[in-house]
Amino acid sequence: MTLKLYTLCGADTARHFSPHVWKTVMSLHHKGLDFEECPTPFTAIPEIEGGATKTVPLLVDGDTMIVDSFAIAEYLEETYPDAPSLFGGAGGVAAARFVERWSLTHMYVPLRSIIIMDIFNRLSEKDQAYFRSTREVRFGKPLEELAAGGAAQIDALSANLEPMRQTLSFHPFLGGEAPLFSDYIVFGGLQWARVISPIKLLADDDPVSAWFERCLDLFEGAGRKVPAAA
Amino acid sequence: MTLKLYTLCGADTARHFSPHVWKTVMSLHHKGLDFEECPTPFTAIPEIEGGATKTVPLLVDGDTMIVDSFAIAEYLEETYPDAPSLFGGAGGVAAARFVERWSLTHMYVPLRSIIIMDIFNRLSEKDQAYFRSTREVRFGKPLEELAAGGAAQIDALSANLEPMRQTLSFHPFLGGEAPLFSDYIVFGGLQWARVISPIKLLADDDPVSAWFERCLDLFEGAGRKVPAAA
Repeated sequence: MTLKLYTLCGADTARHFSPHVWKTVMSLHHKGLDFEECPTPFTAIPEIEGGATKTVPLLVDGDTMIVDSFAIAEYLEETYPDAPSLFGGAGGVAAARFVERWSLTHMYVPLRSIIIMDIFNRLSEKDQAYFRSTREVRFGKPLEELAAGGAAQIDALSANLEPMRQTLSFHPFLGGEAPLFSDYIVFGGLQWARVISPIKLLADDDPVSAWFERCLDLFEGAGRKVPAAA
Repeated sequence: MTLKLYTLCGADTARHFSPHVWKTVMSLHHKGLDFEECPTPFTAIPEIEGGATKTVPLLVDGDTMIVDSFAIAEYLEETYPDAPSLFGGAGGVAAARFVERWSLTHMYVPLRSIIIMDIFNRLSEKDQAYFRSTREVRFGKPLEELAAGGAAQIDALSANLEPMRQTLSFHPFLGGEAPLFSDYIVFGGLQWARVISPIKLLADDDPVSAWFERCLDLFEGAGRKVPAAA
């Protein structure tokens, strides 16, 4: 049976951009599962599946609904144990949590400053009002002020990615010879930027760029189905 | 047969302090192996085992000699597969490499500035000359200048540890419910500071402090056998 995945979209429903949803898209492909994407604007999320969630990704698998990209990955691992592993063993699950927390604090934070106005500009008018009011409360400043610090964050992001760069000198993916959920966690962040913003984040000769291209090539180019933002 | 582990010491041979050696000490205990420690000052390392290594840890297991804490952990995992796993599966090996690179760039770098004069002061006169000349070339500045930036690095270290702090809200060790080599990688850094410097790095109520205490309790308090520096 085809699974259903609620994704996050702006005014253009074909360009889904949530980094967390992208983690789940890659996880579903990794497990070889068929799924249908349901693009959802911010302000429509509270209405889906009878108010099942405040956030996406939301995965519907028959009678089961799961929210949160990490919980979904764990669910898929448990429910589809014969498909390729997303974690490579119990040690990999715990380690993926560390990669998640590292990416949230050291990658997503600078990324957010860099691309926040690109996100805003691609939302429908109704979603723009929602996004501005909720984010300005959350970050304690106007979106424009957050964005003003963005350019300086490009260097910070690059410096923060150094552990990943060094890891890629040992093996082609964070997961080793082949990708695991850890790769999709970091991929989600760079894909978020790729589909929403034309800004160039990494040098072409950066090993992280080469790794990102490898991730975009996975699953018959699943990540490229949404073109880079122009 | 008892294994032999070459450790790094200063003027006091009982106070071995290399963070990388500490990773191996914990790895050996994790595998339940008996080993003999051979404390070695910096300038004596080139002479051990007929010039087998420029660095410690060096592990001698019968006819096999292995250098480098990560290589040693992989060797132990392969050679003693029936003892508790250090990685928790293949995914855990790749992930431990990421934790290693993260710790080297985001934890060991600030730590080094903070404790470098404590290291210097605990070396024998001969080792002090060696340490100063090699490190001043490596870092491109006098030790005292590196150390001058140390106080500011305490806050940087604490900020850098945030991914770890958040991970510990999910499970008590980086490895999950029980420690893995990833834990010993980070433990090595804080133990390096604990045995060589009286400086207080973390608040008592920091979850990372509680985790460090849990690590010190492991293996009948193996990490406490060297008392904290006064």
